[in-house]
Formats: sequence, C-alpha cells, structure tokens
Amino acid sequence: MTVTSGVSEEAKPEQVTLHPLRGRVEQEPLCIFGTGDLGRSLGLRLLQTGCRVVYGSRRPHSCGPLPEGAEVMSHEAAAKAARLIFICVHREHYTFMETLATYLKGKVLVDLSNNLKKDIYPEANAVYLQRLVPGATVVKGLNTLSAWALQNGLLTGKQVYLCGNSTEAKQAVAEVATKMGLTVLDRGSLSAARDLEDFPLRLFPEWRLPLRIAVSLTAFFYFYLLIRDVIYAYVEQGKDISYRIMVSLANKVFPIVSLVMLSLCYLPGVIAAFFQLYRGTKYRRFPNWLDRWMLCRKQMGLIALGFAFLHAIHTFIIPIRYAVRHKLISRVVDEMKNNKTTPFDFDNTEAWGTDSFYVLGILGFFLYVLLGLTSLPSVGGSLSWREFSFIQSKLGHVTLFICTAHGYIYGWNKFLRLATYKWYTPPGYMLCLVVPSVVLVLKMLILLPCVDRTLTRIRQGWERTQSSEEETGGIKATNL
Amino acid sequence: MTVTSGVSEEAKPEQVTLHPLRGRVEQEPLCIFGTGDLGRSLGLRLLQTGCRVVYGSRRPHSCGPLPEGAEVMSHEAAAKAARLIFICVHREHYTFMETLATYLKGKVLVDLSNNLKKDIYPEANAVYLQRLVPGATVVKGLNTLSAWALQNGLLTGKQVYLCGNSTEAKQAVAEVATKMGLTVLDRGSLSAARDLEDFPLRLFPEWRLPLRIAVSLTAFFYFYLLIRDVIYAYVEQGKDISYRIMVSLANKVFPIVSLVMLSLCYLPGVIAAFFQLYRGTKYRRFPNWLDRWMLCRKQMGLIALGFAFLHAIHTFIIPIRYAVRHKLISRVVDEMKNNKTTPFDFDNTEAWGTDSFYVLGILGFFLYVLLGLTSLPSVGGSLSWREFSFIQSKLGHVTLFICTAHGYIYGWNKFLRLATYKWYTPPGYMLCLVVPSVVLVLKMLILLPCVDRTLTRIRQGWERTQSSEEETGGIKATNL
Amino acid sequence: MTVTSGVSEEAKPEQVTLHPLRGRVEQEPLCIFGTGDLGRSLGLRLLQTGCRVVYGSRRPHSCGPLPEGAEVMSHEAAAKAARLIFICVHREHYTFMETLATYLKGKVLVDLSNNLKKDIYPEANAVYLQRLVPGATVVKGLNTLSAWALQNGLLTGKQVYLCGNSTEAKQAVAEVATKMGLTVLDRGSLSAARDLEDFPLRLFPEWRLPLRIAVSLTAFFYFYLLIRDVIYAYVEQGKDISYRIMVSLANKVFPIVSLVMLSLCYLPGVIAAFFQLYRGTKYRRFPNWLDRWMLCRKQMGLIALGFAFLHAIHTFIIPIRYAVRHKLISRVVDEMKNNKTTPFDFDNTEAWGTDSFYVLGILGFFLYVLLGLTSLPSVGGSLSWREFSFIQSKLGHVTLFICTAHGYIYGWNKFLRLATYKWYTPPGYMLCLVVPSVVLVLKMLILLPCVDRTLTRIRQGWERTQSSEEETGGIKATNL
Repeated sequence: MTVTSGVSEEAKPEQVTLHPLRGRVEQEPLCIFGTGDLGRSLGLRLLQTGCRVVYGSRRPHSCGPLPEGAEVMSHEAAAKAARLIFICVHREHYTFMETLATYLKGKVLVDLSNNLKKDIYPEANAVYLQRLVPGATVVKGLNTLSAWALQNGLLTGKQVYLCGNSTEAKQAVAEVATKMGLTVLDRGSLSAARDLEDFPLRLFPEWRLPLRIAVSLTAFFYFYLLIRDVIYAYVEQGKDISYRIMVSLANKVFPIVSLVMLSLCYLPGVIAAFFQLYRGTKYRRFPNWLDRWMLCRKQMGLIALGFAFLHAIHTFIIPIRYAVRHKLISRVVDEMKNNKTTPFDFDNTEAWGTDSFYVLGILGFFLYVLLGLTSLPSVGGSLSWREFSFIQSKLGHVTLFICTAHGYIYGWNKFLRLATYKWYTPPGYMLCLVVPSVVLVLKMLILLPCVDRTLTRIRQGWERTQSSEEETGGIKATNL
Repeated sequence: MTVTSGVSEEAKPEQVTLHPLRGRVEQEPLCIFGTGDLGRSLGLRLLQTGCRVVYGSRRPHSCGPLPEGAEVMSHEAAAKAARLIFICVHREHYTFMETLATYLKGKVLVDLSNNLKKDIYPEANAVYLQRLVPGATVVKGLNTLSAWALQNGLLTGKQVYLCGNSTEAKQAVAEVATKMGLTVLDRGSLSAARDLEDFPLRLFPEWRLPLRIAVSLTAFFYFYLLIRDVIYAYVEQGKDISYRIMVSLANKVFPIVSLVMLSLCYLPGVIAAFFQLYRGTKYRRFPNWLDRWMLCRKQMGLIALGFAFLHAIHTFIIPIRYAVRHKLISRVVDEMKNNKTTPFDFDNTEAWGTDSFYVLGILGFFLYVLLGLTSLPSVGGSLSWREFSFIQSKLGHVTLFICTAHGYIYGWNKFLRLATYKWYTPPGYMLCLVVPSVVLVLKMLILLPCVDRTLTRIRQGWERTQSSEEETGGIKATNL
Repeated sequence: MTVTSGVSEEAKPEQVTLHPLRGRVEQEPLCIFGTGDLGRSLGLRLLQTGCRVVYGSRRPHSCGPLPEGAEVMSHEAAAKAARLIFICVHREHYTFMETLATYLKGKVLVDLSNNLKKDIYPEANAVYLQRLVPGATVVKGLNTLSAWALQNGLLTGKQVYLCGNSTEAKQAVAEVATKMGLTVLDRGSLSAARDLEDFPLRLFPEWRLPLRIAVSLTAFFYFYLLIRDVIYAYVEQGKDISYRIMVSLANKVFPIVSLVMLSLCYLPGVIAAFFQLYRGTKYRRFPNWLDRWMLCRKQMGLIALGFAFLHAIHTFIIPIRYAVRHKLISRVVDEMKNNKTTPFDFDNTEAWGTDSFYVLGILGFFLYVLLGLTSLPSVGGSLSWREFSFIQSKLGHVTLFICTAHGYIYGWNKFLRLATYKWYTPPGYMLCLVVPSVVLVLKMLILLPCVDRTLTRIRQGWERTQSSEEETGGIKATNL
C-alpha cells in the first residue's frame, strides 16, 4: 500500500506515508457521455464525492452549463482519458459510439439508460450497446437514479442494481457507486439488463394484489349495503334516503373492508402454520398462492389502516352532518309534542354498551396506527428482530382481536332480532366478522400448548419423518 | 495486497493470506486533540469501528474520563504517533498548536470546530489553523456531527461534508468517516470552510420562504375575515360575536391557507411547463425566482398539510363547542315556542350537498396525508422514480382537484346570492379558490393531447429551433 | 495495486489496468455452513453483492433448494475452499466441527447463532465454538440479521455488531458486511459475545422505565378519579354513573398522564442545568438516576404523544356518545317543561373560555405531533444539530407551556370553588398541573439573562474553581 509513483513522492514529500494512496489512482477521471439533465447531475455528484469528471460531447464548446470543475472534451478525447464511461444518452443515438469503437476498446461502459415503455425494443439497451461496441465491457446499472435525486443528494443508503458479464467492471462501477453513498446489488450477467431497464417503469407491483382485493371488497359491500339500506327503504317503506349513499354507507363499508383486510393480513400466517403442522416439516415450499399472499401482507395491513383512518374521520364528523342534526332536533320536538312524562329514559346498559363499543374502536385504531408506524422503513429498521416480531405478530393479533370485538359489540343485541335480516340477508357487519373470527379461532388453536410446542420444534428445524428420522432428523436440525 | 511485515507473518502464520491486510495498516492510531464532549464521543465511536485512538492532552494524567481502550499522551507524543489528527478544540485555543508545528509537519489536521455565531472571525477556523501550522494539511469537515449523535450511534447514512486543498488528505478522512457509517461529500478546496462552518448554524433555510408566505396569507385572511364577520356584525347588526375569533375564524382561515399553499406548490411546475413550451427547449435556465420557488415545493406542501390537519381537528370539535351547542338548543326551543307544524323539514338537496362536501373534504385530507407520508425520507427513498412521480404529481393534482371541489361545494348556493357579498367584498372561500382554479385550468391545458405531446418531446431533449434544427436538433436529443 | 496474476492479464488484456483488481481477490469464495433459512438467505444476499458462495453440507446432494449460483460441497471441501466461514447452525450441533478441526485451522469462523433464551448455556456460543476449534479464529457477529430481512433486502444502513480477538479477522468480516450495505460496529474482544447473543432477545429495554411510569400514573389517576367521580356520586348522591368508567374517566386520565409524562421528559434537562450551575462545571458526571432518566426522554415524549392522541380521539367522539346525546335532549326538554322565558342565555365569557381551551388543546396537539415526527429516525437524521435542538428544546418547551395553559384554562373558574374539592381532595387536573408548572418555573429561572449566561459559559467548558482557576480553567476550556 505504500508504493507510489516517484513523481508524486517528490511533489508532496510529507504526505507520502498517508495511507489512502488509492485516492491517487482514482483521480484518473471518470467520463460521462451526454450533457443532458442526468449527465450533468451525475457529474455534479461525482465531483462532490471527490472524483475528476470529464464530459464527452460532440461539440465541446457549446454544450450548455456543466457543473463547475468538470472538463469537456470531444467524445474521442474523453474516451481516451478515462476507463469508466457513463453513457447518459438515449438509446436512439447509440450509433455514434460505433464510430468510436477503437477508442472504447477495453473501456467499461456504464449504460444508465431507460426506456419510456416496456418491450419497445427487441433487446435490452445494454445488450444493444454491447453489440455495437463489442470491444468494450458493458455494465448495466444505476438506471434507477433520477437527475432530481442526484442533484438534491437524496441518494444515501439507496439501493441500486448492476449487471454485466465482467466482475471486474462491475466492481469498478460498484466502487464509484458506493462512494456516492449508494448500496449496490449485483444482479448477475448482462442478460438481466432487461429486468433492470423495466425496473424504473414499475408502478407499485407489490401493491396491485392488495389494492385489487380492497377495491373488490369495497365494491361488493357497497352494493350489498346499497341494496339492503337505501333500495330496501325505498321499495318497502317508500322512503328516499338516497343521501345516505355519501357518508353513511361509506362509513359502514370502510370499517368492514378494513377489518376483512386486516384479517386477510394474518390469515396466511395461520394457514402456513397449519401447512407446517400437517407436513411435519418447514423445509417444503408453500404453494405459490400462499407465498404470493404472504409477500403482500404489509401492503394489506397498510391498506387496512387507510380504511380504518377513513372510518375514524367519517365517525368524527357524524354529529355535524345535516341529517344527524335534523334527526336529533326532530326527535326532541317529537318528544315534546307527544308530551310524554319520561320523554327519554336513561338506559344504563345502552350507555355501557355504546361506550365499550367506542373504547374498543379507539384502542383498535390506536394499535392500528402503532402497527403502521413500525412498518415505516426507518422505524422498523431500528428494531431488533424480537421487537419487530413482537409488534407485528403479537400486537397485530391483539389489534385484530380488539377490532373484531368492536364489530361484535356493534351488533350485540341485533344478532337474534329478525328485523335485522332484511330480505333474509345478514347485515354487512355480520358478514365481515366471519373471516376475522376464523383467523382468531385458528390462531387460538395454534397457541394451545401442545400445538405450539410442536410448531416451535418444526420451526427450529425438527422434522416428523416416519422412515428416515434416525438418519436425517439430526442433520436437518443443525440449520438455523 | 498480500505483502505484510515479517513479524506478523510469523506471529499469525495461518492468517497471512486473509485479504483485509489493509486492516493492519489502519491500526496506526488516530489522534484526537481535545478531551471535551466531542473529543470523547468521537474517540468512543472510532474505537467502536475498530480503530486505535490516541488522545493528545496538555496534562495526560488529569484529563477526566476517556473512553475505554484509548491512550492518552502529551500533545507532542500523540502528534508523533498518528498521521491523522482530529482537532476537537475551540478556535480560541488553537495557538498552542503553533508551538507543535514541528510535530505537526506533514500531518493531516481535521478541523471539526464550529462557531457560536456567523461572521465573528474574519477567516474560517480551518483557514486560521492552516495559517498557524502551514506545514500540516488542514481538512475541514465532520463539524455537523454532535457529541450526542456520536455517542448514541445515530450516524448511519448521515451525510457529512469535507473540504481541503489536498485530495489525499480528504481521502484519508473520508475513509475513516465511511467506516463510521457516514456518507461523505467533498465540497472542494479549503475556501469552502466558511460554508461548512456556517452549516450547523443554519436554521431551516429552505423553510423560510414557505413559512413567510404561510404567515402572510394567514395574517391577511385572518384580518379580512375579522372585518367581514365580526366587525361587520358589530357595526351593521350591533351583535357581539367576538368569541368567534378563536375557533370559528381559525377554522375558516386554515382551510383557505392550506388550499392556497397546496396550489402554490403545483403552480411553479405548470409555469415551468409553459416556459418550456414557449421557448421550445428545456436547455435554457428558468428565471431565478422560479428556480427558488420550485426548490421549496416540498416545504410548501408540508405546510399546507399542517394547515389541513389543523382544519380537520377544528372541524371535529365543532359539536362540543359551547356556542354551537347553545345555538342548537335555542333553535329547538325556538321552534317549539313558535309552534310550527313542520318545525324543521328535511331537505334532501341540503343533505346531499353537505354530505358531498364532507366526503370530498375527507378524501382530500386522506390524500394529503398520503402525500405527506411519501415525502418522509425513508418512504420516498424506497419508491422508484415512476412511483414517486406518480404519487407527487398525479396524486398531488388529484388532491388539489378534490380540495378545490370541496371549496366550490361549500359555496355552491351562495355565489349568486347578494347577501354573501357583505360590504361588497367576496367571502374568503371565494378568494381562495382563484389560485387553485387557475392551476387546475392550466394543468388541464397541458394535459391536452397536442400540448402534452410537444411537452414530452421537449422534456426528452427535442428543441424547436428554426435555423439550426438540422445540425443541432439531433445531437441535443441524444442526452438523457 | 497494479499487480495481478499473469493468467488473468492474458485472459482479459484490456482490463488489466482497471483499478478494482481487489475484486479478483475477493472472488475467493465465502463459505456457509448450514443450509437452513438463515444460511440460504445469507447466501442469496452474498451472491447479490457479487461474492462467490460455497455451502458446506453433510449431504451436499440432498440439502434442499439453495440460491442459484451457489455451490454445494462437503463440509471438508467447503472449508478448504474458503477462508471465511459463516456458521449458520444451531449451537447444539457445533460438535461436528470438532472433527473438521484440521480443515478449519487458520480459518475465520463467523458465529451468527442466537439462543432462544438468556443464560441457558454457561458460556457464549462463540466462546464454545472457539474452544471446540482452537485453531480457527472465531468472530461473533451479524447475529441480529434475520433471514427475513436478508431475503427482502432490508439491510441498507442497518447497524450490526462484531466482536472477536483478531482484528484482521474482524476486518475481513466487516468488509463483507459493508458490501451488503450494513454498518459495522466493533464491540471488542470475544468476551463481548454474550452481550451480542443477548441482543436479539432484547425487548424494548429503553421503553421499560417510561412504560412503567406511564402505567403507574395511569393506574393511580384512574383509581383516584374513580373514587372522586363514580364512587362519590354513588355514596353521596346515590346516582349510578358507572358507565362513565369507560370513556369519561379515560378521557380525564389520558390528558393528565400525557401532560405529566411530557413534563417528566423536560424535567431532567432542567435538573441537569441546576446541577451544572451548582457545581460550576460540566465535567463531573451526573448521578446515575439522572443519567438513566435523560436517556429515556425520547421514549417518555413518545408515550406522552400516544396518550395525547388517545385524548384527542376520545374528545372527538364525545358528541356521538349515548350519554352525551341523552343529556343534551333531556336538557332541552327540561327547559321547555319549566317554560323559562330565556331558556338558555348566551354567555360570552363562557364562549371565549371554552373556545380558548379548545384552541390551546389543538395547538398543543399539533406541536406534539410535530415533535413526534422529528423523532422519526429518518426525519431527525436530516436535520442539522441546531435545527434538531430548536425543535426538541424550544418547541418542546412551548408545547409544554401550551398544554399546561390548556390545563389551567380547563379549571379556570373552579380553583376557588369549594364544591370542586369533593371529600377534600383536589380534582385530577389540578394534581397534574403541579409537575409541569414546576418545570416551567425552573426553566424560566434558567432563561433569566444572568443565569443563562453562566450556564452557557459552563456548557462551553468554563469552570468555576476557586483555587486552581488560573492553571486549569484555560486548558479545560479548550475542548469542544
């Protein structure tokens, strides 16, 4: 590490023994082709991390404002000066690099390009570039960075992906990226370039299934309740209560969907436990649908929280709604007109019932918010594994239990009343209690000491195998 | 990389081939001058990252508690032992280093000092230090770290700045900083030291403009409504409704300011688009005022969210306010006294209107909160560029649209009523609808297919140049 | 840095001069013993960061699905191939490594194991492993990583701990960990292994004291108010208002506990200031109880925020509660029956009082939420030190002041009324005002110019020492 060139030793004699002499090697410039937004932002950032930057441009003297400290040269000169060349140019204009082939021989070309849509070209941009300049080594990567994030220094800790056929070339790029504060993930050979190019075009892929479920549930319950409430009242009693469509119906549908989504978020874990119990091992893969389901539990939980939030706000504004105030006033006037002696007796059971209902709702919402907060990346990241699992599993099931109880209390005295079942259909809150109740019952089964013990052993690697227990049991169990 | 000293090869023969032999070189100690809070915390952290630490102290035997594992020496001995010296001493006491000049020759001095106020010294601390010890290489940096953050390990991923005239020295410091989990940004030569020293004294510079706008708007609308509501009632009707100043007025001003701030947050983007359309290129810089405006959009949006939050809470507590309950009760009593037959007819249109009003408000607030959540650094950082722009641009404009509609419905039947215009002034909610309506109309113009197509092409680098289209158009468009 | 093996020079002649030749050295494989969840996830992640991975397995041909790109060998062969071996096996099965002792000689064994409970073994797993394989160098660490986090790429910026007796071995492991995006903290020699193994078993240790205080306060005030409100009404007036236990009592207890917790969060800072003033120096350690208290201020503040949040929701749902609506209706009916002429006079003072009460509460809650947001790791991390201290100290004290004022206004006209003191006990809201008032008064004393000046000097390192001021004062003050 202490060997340097003679020239620099003489130039700065006192600093010869400083260890980061590697720095001197890196002062070889990095080259950027393309002086657009991305090229300029990337150059700015590279300069800030202490690198030398050279731009390659067709007309070096009229390429607009570039970051201070960067040099501009012709493409040829820039390619000669550097070993690492960042290509910040649209794919449509790659052809000019064919003419530079001799200068680009042996260089590492980092393809940062993205396309506007998927599948508009037969091959990935990076593969195309490699075909144009076979003498160079193409690395695809860093294409998830936006000019905006580069300029505003929002890179720290961000993950970026690389792929390429040469490990050395990828290492060179990874080193530069690490200096910019990025975390690099190697995605393998250049054949992965297509995936990387599709990545910035992704639009919440892991949210699609949960959102689809949420929308379907909302639509179903909305129409179900529309028929039972508004249309029923119109058909059977001739009353027009269509105004309820806006707030009242919404405030029935939101808690229903929220509770179902929350239970769907804990159902796969319970199913997985039963799979493991039935199979007697944890080493067999779950069916694909279960895997997919388990991977979107976080999103399901967050959507459930969103619906719970909407439910809470809808509840808070109940008393200021016109219809509610009108009902209150007309009730009083009614009471007075009919001149009852005890116009409105205080019912202690009713007071206890509704207050318990509200307390459970508030507590459930509070825990909901707590669960949501711990799923923020920066909060969850600061928890130990046991803390995270305590919050997400124990507290999560408690939340589900409280919210289910909230639902049961809502209908506590209506389950056995015939008037509840308009047109022989159960009300929405009864329907929505089915899934959470099932989840809670199954979870309680799992928590039975005998079942829990078996499950814990299975999860620690133990296997229930009839024939080969002697020979494999011990070995499998050695793995964490 | 495989060359080590003979001694250690013999001592640990099996480990000779381990690659991080660099570790052995780094076991040269790092020196810290100053045993105050910062010195001790820095030393603790350096020890934790596996470095050797030597303190330089004037009286090594009575300098208070130091982190376990650190050595204490005289300034001279410590300076000799290390190449990298962290100066954790107040500027006022730098003079003692002049006497150490011979020992400090060729060393790297890292100046971590800050001042209590701006501009109390003619030159930056680091420049002063360099002048005192010309033989050493001064690097300014890490001065944004607090002793508190160092002790509590809150450094991971934090950005720190360095500046200095020697690249090698900066690299050496950057390497140590990276080992502590910091991300280093090089800010150039030692002349930037003043900026770095002013940095910890900054107090929300990017929030100043938005806060100033918010405060001005709040003050203006507050007095405007005070005159129109309270003073008007007092002058024209002789009624004292001054109690409304607290909650009622606030709950009128907050939504107004929130909506205006939200639209001001999307206005610059629209203006920028028109600039680009008019100029036919994206390569000319925007005027300074527009640049500045665009850089504080996030802060504007967050302040708008704050006001919306206040508006929501003010709305939730409406029914428990004394004045509101009094009005409700006296209204009932009034109805009864006058013995109307249909005391309070249910108005279906009114029910639909107010409920729609509330639903739009709730939905708008929900989206507002969603926007706010995605601007949390840890959430925004986990989104792809397309996801982020989807949330902040598309969802943002939808939020603006919904909130504007919320405002329009509030006044739906009052626009054409003359009594609305007290003293010939429009009510506040009408005034506040002007800016959002303009933004939405302009945005809709931009979304027209023909305009959108041109704008997309311009943003991809295309230029509308009359004379030189043939020669430059193609090349400019090559840049991402 | 430019020396490479002849073979690779010939194979890829153009790339010889690429600097990250270190990459080639690292392409020596990393070995993983154990093909369980953790082993597989770790291997996947290592492959993604560009490392070669070799699994050691007792039956290499039937060890289940492994990440693509990894090789599987016998334990012996794998141990031979690599220098760094990750042990992902339960402690109970470590004995098989005794038989591999010759192959493991000179290797670095990274012990990632955890135990299910504390203190079930006499010695730490890593120490046991070192005893089994004395020829190898054991490094304990990375044991806080879960298979789940590894698989889902949730590592970026996470802190991990290492300990071991060999600095070289630790450096080697730290380098690999850094490549995975982790930040490494060295915790010293292998004797720290026990601490590291206990770490994943921790369950919110820093939350215990604040939670205990919060639960005690809640229980105390709950029973105190139960006696004063419900039992008093039953005993003295024979009324059954037990339904109040659910919501009304809770909504009295929550704000009380919240305010006390918030003031307890600022009290230690004030006490510390008085300690420093009294001692005339900042260089003497605070008593242990004060240190412990100061370290859990953040948690106290967050619990206070939780209680404030519960208080807010309880307040929002007041008007929809059965008991409240009943009271409202019966009041109107009552008024009408008794046929008063001015049934319910509007009281301007009452309107001002209650509205001020609400405004202060809303403002206090808003600032509370702001304080909570800035204590999110990702938000707090982006603030400069001055900004953070502005928010947490200045804004925090303002919040405390506003919330205390909110409490005082609640009881503004009841302090001097005898009926307030049922059974000669003060109401809860008076009790809870004691601590915040003390904190605010003490804080105001500190803010007096003369006190503030002395304190600032002390915090900058000045010492009030009678005898030795001349000789030590100057030097002590040199430290930041």
